[in-house]
Amino acid sequence: MLYLVGLGLADETDITVKGLEVVKRAERVYLEAYTSILHVGKEKLEAFYDRPVIVADREMVESSSDEILAGADKADIAFLVVGDPFGATTHTDLVLRAQELSIPTKSIPNASILNAIGATGLQLYNFGQTVSMVFFTETWKPASFYDRIRENTSIGLHTLILLDIKVKEQSLENMARGRKIYEPPRYMTVAQCAQQMLEIEDEKKESVYSEDSLAIGCARVAADDQKFACGTLRELCDTDVGPPLHSLVLLGKRAHELERDYIRLFAVNEQTFDQSWNKYHAKE
Amino acid sequence: MLYLVGLGLADETDITVKGLEVVKRAERVYLEAYTSILHVGKEKLEAFYDRPVIVADREMVESSSDEILAGADKADIAFLVVGDPFGATTHTDLVLRAQELSIPTKSIPNASILNAIGATGLQLYNFGQTVSMVFFTETWKPASFYDRIRENTSIGLHTLILLDIKVKEQSLENMARGRKIYEPPRYMTVAQCAQQMLEIEDEKKESVYSEDSLAIGCARVAADDQKFACGTLRELCDTDVGPPLHSLVLLGKRAHELERDYIRLFAVNEQTFDQSWNKYHAKE
Repeated sequence: MLYLVGLGLADETDITVKGLEVVKRAERVYLEAYTSILHVGKEKLEAFYDRPVIVADREMVESSSDEILAGADKADIAFLVVGDPFGATTHTDLVLRAQELSIPTKSIPNASILNAIGATGLQLYNFGQTVSMVFFTETWKPASFYDRIRENTSIGLHTLILLDIKVKEQSLENMARGRKIYEPPRYMTVAQCAQQMLEIEDEKKESVYSEDSLAIGCARVAADDQKFACGTLRELCDTDVGPPLHSLVLLGKRAHELERDYIRLFAVNEQTFDQSWNKYHAKE
Repeated sequence: MLYLVGLGLADETDITVKGLEVVKRAERVYLEAYTSILHVGKEKLEAFYDRPVIVADREMVESSSDEILAGADKADIAFLVVGDPFGATTHTDLVLRAQELSIPTKSIPNASILNAIGATGLQLYNFGQTVSMVFFTETWKPASFYDRIRENTSIGLHTLILLDIKVKEQSLENMARGRKIYEPPRYMTVAQCAQQMLEIEDEKKESVYSEDSLAIGCARVAADDQKFACGTLRELCDTDVGPPLHSLVLLGKRAHELERDYIRLFAVNEQTFDQSWNKYHAKE
């Protein structure tokens, strides 16, 4: 059996009792380490599980999935995923490959950023579709997020934006020369996300949002040092919420006054918060 | 400290290691038992935790919250919630009351139906806002869900519909006479939800969905006997997916072919599935 085990969001104790039982008895344990990260390293997990953990990078999962699945028809293999196994869409290939090989699969659910974001005080009922933001380059600035956000804002809903992470990237030069030398990992910050959002609004000028739209910068959600900063997109361009992972919520028009009272506690600047709230969110 | 501890969705082992530590050391342990249910009873939880659990019904949480919070300024109190603490919105009052009393609060996240619904094979990215369906009565048929679904379908998104549960209800007669005699619990079924949806469409006639719209009836999501049935709303009116809890997903137009391949495995009738898919979801 291939088990996809959700690890939750913060540390080694966020695994479920059911998930831990699977990890303890599995023949091999893989840790998916390229779509998200816990706030503890592999060593901490190994000590907690009292067994070795194999870090699976994207290359391994995409090119060597049969290696991961070897023997899974007879023994149990645990594939650990930060958050919930269904949170990221990238593991479908592994599951489909297992099915081709007649290997049964099972998911052990856990908290995902999609529900843990409720810690902001925003109602989960008021969120539209979740979108992703990738790192822009000089020549590649994918803006499909802009249309998705428009769809959400057009019906007054909040948008959760998940931010890019880059792990085991090669420089163009190293890639060209076939050298397996990797750049340090990069995690998009709330400030970078806000800047990219404003860059695209500035280019398209369709008023999907603007410099004084309210958003919440979120860092290390569900961890003890979780941090929220609520401000205008312009303010968030200069706001440092600390170490990764970050995400951002753009406020929908339909935001309720109970939600306001809660998120105002995180306001970067209460005066500008009130101005933007009154401009975009206050009911007549 | 007041801890809101998510229990996950199926059985006693879905609690996180972190959550279990809190339960083991808390002075008192309450189980919120009116917005959702696990598939195991209080006794199973007590045996697993090796300590007593106090069942908290709606009346207790809403009218006697100070009793729950007594001593929480000095000791730890655990308030257990099925799924994720942020999944339901009804605990805000308890948290606000704790804050008034200067009692710190902390949430221990867990899986919620909002992410576990990914087990259907539908992409969580393609869901719009979540809606709730309550039991209709002869005189009360709240239809606000219809407008919410329209908003989602207008931008092609799936809608997760959470179904009503009624626990410790009194009959009108018993209520009038002040007798604390309660009706047996009721859990809305997929079939009842589909019927109520068609009843409202039939009344409003705004073509938000129709008899042959595709939906997935979901039962006991994340449990070993989890069951999905994909069919038209008309078919689901006559489909029995077994014991509670149920929920329903109405398919959005933007459904992807990879999603189709997955959900077709649960089709009540492959022929009608293909007809509806081709009518509403196939790309030109």
